Amino acid sequence: MPKVKILTQSDLRKAVPLDGDAVDCVEKAFAALAGGKVVMPPILSLAIREANGEVDVKTAYVPGLDSFAIKVSPGFFDNPKIGLPSTSGLMMVFSAKTGVLEALLLDNGYLTDVRTAAAGAVAAKHCSREDAATVCIFGAGMQARLQLQALTLVRPVKKALFWARDMAKAEALAERIKTEDGIEAVAMTDPEAAVSEADIVITTTPAIEPVLKADWLRPGQHVTAMGSDQHSKNEIEPECLARADAYVPDRQSQTAELGELRSAIEAGVVSADKRFAELGEIITGAAKARLSPSAITIADLTGTGVQDTAIATLALKRAGQMGLGVAFDSEA
Amino acid sequence: MPKVKILTQSDLRKAVPLDGDAVDCVEKAFAALAGGKVVMPPILSLAIREANGEVDVKTAYVPGLDSFAIKVSPGFFDNPKIGLPSTSGLMMVFSAKTGVLEALLLDNGYLTDVRTAAAGAVAAKHCSREDAATVCIFGAGMQARLQLQALTLVRPVKKALFWARDMAKAEALAERIKTEDGIEAVAMTDPEAAVSEADIVITTTPAIEPVLKADWLRPGQHVTAMGSDQHSKNEIEPECLARADAYVPDRQSQTAELGELRSAIEAGVVSADKRFAELGEIITGAAKARLSPSAITIADLTGTGVQDTAIATLALKRAGQMGLGVAFDSEA
Repeated sequence: MPKVKILTQSDLRKAVPLDGDAVDCVEKAFAALAGGKVVMPPILSLAIREANGEVDVKTAYVPGLDSFAIKVSPGFFDNPKIGLPSTSGLMMVFSAKTGVLEALLLDNGYLTDVRTAAAGAVAAKHCSREDAATVCIFGAGMQARLQLQALTLVRPVKKALFWARDMAKAEALAERIKTEDGIEAVAMTDPEAAVSEADIVITTTPAIEPVLKADWLRPGQHVTAMGSDQHSKNEIEPECLARADAYVPDRQSQTAELGELRSAIEAGVVSADKRFAELGEIITGAAKARLSPSAITIADLTGTGVQDTAIATLALKRAGQMGLGVAFDSEA
Repeated sequence: MPKVKILTQSDLRKAVPLDGDAVDCVEKAFAALAGGKVVMPPILSLAIREANGEVDVKTAYVPGLDSFAIKVSPGFFDNPKIGLPSTSGLMMVFSAKTGVLEALLLDNGYLTDVRTAAAGAVAAKHCSREDAATVCIFGAGMQARLQLQALTLVRPVKKALFWARDMAKAEALAERIKTEDGIEAVAMTDPEAAVSEADIVITTTPAIEPVLKADWLRPGQHVTAMGSDQHSKNEIEPECLARADAYVPDRQSQTAELGELRSAIEAGVVSADKRFAELGEIITGAAKARLSPSAITIADLTGTGVQDTAIATLALKRAGQMGLGVAFDSEA
């Protein structure tokens, strides 16, 4: 058997920063998904209720790529109490010709953070107004910051408004973004006021009750809801989907189960058999999301295996160019 | 993050031979599955048709165990043409409390071979006659030998009869078993004659058309069909299930999709809503497979995630006792 390349989290941070290439590779992945030849099975999900944990396994085969990735994402939400991050995990890269394990990307969830933020940028690039400059972000965790950073790669962002249930965290994050990222950032206690100022609204929370109300939306806005990836989660009021001129799922079969579409269907706001153009189809031009400057658009991102294969493939290529990683003999 | 232990195939061969402990741990795993508290999601399966390949991901959480395994099994059936084995893959072990990756078992499929053979022994132990001494084995691959070796751990095996589509392989295997395993072994060109002599029949082929006919079965026999693990496979004639006094699936939700039960349902021999006692229920005594010495029993094994968690847990414990493996810092 060929040797297995092992890359650590630190290698992967060097190899794959959140940059234009990361956004491009995720954009191409969604376009491939729209081509209909990608093989992307349903997510494998293992719940361990007594530990408040869940593990998701995602994968996708993209014809034309020599490799495919399988990603394991554990999320154990009591971990912070004992000083561990909630999310961790790894990606594996296999040959698409022989199935042989080529690489272990021991990223502890880093590549997921990058490809998730990159998907937000792709959604904004294809749905939001080009002049979008003010962003309202719900949540104050890792993705709150990464979504903003990714957005600056595709839109002329000038100002970020943060709202979070824990306002101390929102304030700390706004301060950090001002200092470290050089973007005007304000923590807002009134989420409605924050939304009313924004061109783009991004929800990055684990909410199980909506944090974004439909009444707050105004013409021209784009919303990316990326926090919901489980049956129990719901960030935006179902009526938001009725108010929107376009609703764009990353993968409708997933958003209908795990995303905002689920609660909209359950509330009777959207018919279960209505078919929406997916993000990939917007990218390829098969459909259009924003038909006018005053339209309201919503992107619903649950995270797809094709993003994982894309970012893992990029990571392995870059790591090779940079001479990172160690080769490990699995038979020794 | 804690360090990750990495074990190679060679470490794992040392730590987990096919022995009584391996059989015991798989037996306990099935018993736990019957207890109803195991969480075992459906198999994730990714097909890559242009490479004649498929990758399966299996997992299970067993309450009471501190860890759970996720296994990735690629099967790429054109690999032998280029000198690579058809199957490979790895197992990962995660903490059931925090989801943190604890170990990478780079076994290239070795542990799957062991836990699959062990399941055959468990099935024979609970279904076959205690005096079963003659075994007929269909197929001449890795599992043909391992199933026989495992069977010797639970039954007084005296003689093995091999039939395979490629008789040269059957002859070579019989020779090897005589020499290396010290069991009387004969390659038989007539499968019907081989079956008529046998107390236990084990099918280990990738057949898509039945290789075992219902007419060949005689009272007192036990059949373990373990080759079918995909929608397209079928080793035993559907009528075998009608002739049998007991049919025992490893997991009925899997055998109805991937095992022999699938073709029996499709042929109308078994009703799709008939419920069978699973192997775990036979082990715990909740149900009984063999009601008389002259009964015919069939076990249908598709391979379950709970076996993977069991064998991976055993491997990690044994490797720890033996001081095997290296600790790897995923953050470095």
